[in-house]
Amino acid sequence: MKFENDLVLRAARGEDIERYPVWLMRQAGRILPEYRAVRGELSGFKELVETPERAAEVTIQPVDLLGVDAAIIFSDILVVPEAMGLEYQMIEKKGPWFEKTIRSMDELIYAQTDFDIEDRLGYVTEAISITNKALNGRVPLIGFAGAPWTIFCYMTEGQGSKTFSESRKLLYTNPTLAHELLNRITEVTIKYLKAQIKAGAHMVQVFDSWAGILGKEQYAEFGLKYMDRIAAAITEVPVTIFAKGAYNSVSEIAAMSCNTVGVDWNMQVDEIRKSVGESITLQGNLDPCVLYSSHSEVERLTKNMLDSFKSKRHIVNLGHGVYPDMDPEKVKTFIKTVKNYEINY
Amino acid sequence: MKFENDLVLRAARGEDIERYPVWLMRQAGRILPEYRAVRGELSGFKELVETPERAAEVTIQPVDLLGVDAAIIFSDILVVPEAMGLEYQMIEKKGPWFEKTIRSMDELIYAQTDFDIEDRLGYVTEAISITNKALNGRVPLIGFAGAPWTIFCYMTEGQGSKTFSESRKLLYTNPTLAHELLNRITEVTIKYLKAQIKAGAHMVQVFDSWAGILGKEQYAEFGLKYMDRIAAAITEVPVTIFAKGAYNSVSEIAAMSCNTVGVDWNMQVDEIRKSVGESITLQGNLDPCVLYSSHSEVERLTKNMLDSFKSKRHIVNLGHGVYPDMDPEKVKTFIKTVKNYEINY
Repeated sequence: MKFENDLVLRAARGEDIERYPVWLMRQAGRILPEYRAVRGELSGFKELVETPERAAEVTIQPVDLLGVDAAIIFSDILVVPEAMGLEYQMIEKKGPWFEKTIRSMDELIYAQTDFDIEDRLGYVTEAISITNKALNGRVPLIGFAGAPWTIFCYMTEGQGSKTFSESRKLLYTNPTLAHELLNRITEVTIKYLKAQIKAGAHMVQVFDSWAGILGKEQYAEFGLKYMDRIAAAITEVPVTIFAKGAYNSVSEIAAMSCNTVGVDWNMQVDEIRKSVGESITLQGNLDPCVLYSSHSEVERLTKNMLDSFKSKRHIVNLGHGVYPDMDPEKVKTFIKTVKNYEINY
Repeated sequence: MKFENDLVLRAARGEDIERYPVWLMRQAGRILPEYRAVRGELSGFKELVETPERAAEVTIQPVDLLGVDAAIIFSDILVVPEAMGLEYQMIEKKGPWFEKTIRSMDELIYAQTDFDIEDRLGYVTEAISITNKALNGRVPLIGFAGAPWTIFCYMTEGQGSKTFSESRKLLYTNPTLAHELLNRITEVTIKYLKAQIKAGAHMVQVFDSWAGILGKEQYAEFGLKYMDRIAAAITEVPVTIFAKGAYNSVSEIAAMSCNTVGVDWNMQVDEIRKSVGESITLQGNLDPCVLYSSHSEVERLTKNMLDSFKSKRHIVNLGHGVYPDMDPEKVKTFIKTVKNYEINY
């Protein structure tokens, strides 16, 4: 594929770049009035996720309206457990909710693997094809999936939680079940990411939102082991791993077969760079709350962050998803500041 | 005061101990049927907190029933914002909720400092006196308060949150207000802790539950600065600081005028010991979910943790509060394992 702008791919591969690329987690959806207009025409979040033309439309909005250097397909990590047999609802202001959960061997009937990705998740790959055609090489398109550990959390807890104690309980009471379920999620996730790539995703990101609730040893056994299998299986395009709160495991993640590691705003980019050297691209990590401050403060704090990067191996992003009540004009100031910044590595 | 068992105080001060002391965060309340019986006689959590005789009763229950080496006064960190002028409700299964919040200078009227602690928080100091009389030196009694940053989070957000984005927003949009409010909370917290000590608390713990949501620099400015003032002001008894998720700031906390640093289960005790040496006692850090496993597993994993301690400067605890659905018999196995463990440092 010939791109007008492939900065994000070059940065991921460690190639030369004329400036840092920038995009935002959750850029598709949430903050744009144009997104809310599309969303308002449909019955809710899930209908939007499952309607390829409309999902493609909101995927492209931030490229047109904000000028980001990459698109990320509008979807949700929970489409995978649903395809495996666990239906979810997205409840306004509460988050995801599953009627059934998997906490015993019998309940593994809701963790199917022997299905065709196109059959059950064809709406995602179709949205990717439509988006790609419409983007026509302006910027690369990012596909994504949840990491097995995070998907496991939702499939066993059945909803969001501060402690995910039901999920963590299983690691002690039924590690055999835990590994079987993680194996199945991993298998489906690899097939799913490959289907996204086949449909046109130019890079993929794996989100481990709940990495931080496990100690180092347990995260190695129940998290990294499966993440590593995914990273090793995806050889077609650059892979980004964002394991939120996995402070203790950054070196282990950087050693995987991935190109980029996501960095939260409460991790220290300079410390991580010291420990991983130039072997990996780091993605992040402005505190999203910076975008609540004045335009001049957004500019100043973004520059501070950029000044702390002593390498070309960076993709600029927030340390977390953009919050729904943020002003798109502040986001534009953030993006403009990155684009005007002179890189000299 | 002459104690039958002052292990926890000696461990905090770095003195010789014949075995590791053990207690559990949230040991008063939650798991004991005897606690639920008391709670059932009252209208709810707040009435129990505000009724000294009953609060004392549930404070002593785990000493009698579980055999812990310390009592901790049954109370809540949110009694401080309430005393300052922000009333809260504890909503079943949802957590705390404040009708008013502080997000502007005008709203600082709900952050009063010029009141007498005994007037508004006398129910806590009275509960401490009653408990102490009843304990009669069997074990030390721990007093506690929330750290200014965590109390600030509740006073500005008005409820629990995954991101506390309203609280963090203020740090960028109105740092003057943030510092003024933090100053006021700090002033009241010092007076409150001193009142607890005067009433008979033999050591105090400061809980910074939301330390982990700030980057290192912001936590230094809005968190540690105020924590440090508290640690420096409390000279009467040993001080424990538990800053959950403050991975980046452990050395700074250990350098404060405190005796003990609480360690979460996803922090590495051996790494922290390496960086702080023998200057400080560490408290923690078994994953509470271990108590969901079998008795033999509880014993094995508790021993594993104890084996990793290469110092006498340890107070054994969970890395977090005990969860409500945990079996008290498993807690007893945990405690028995610690008590039977031969320490040789």
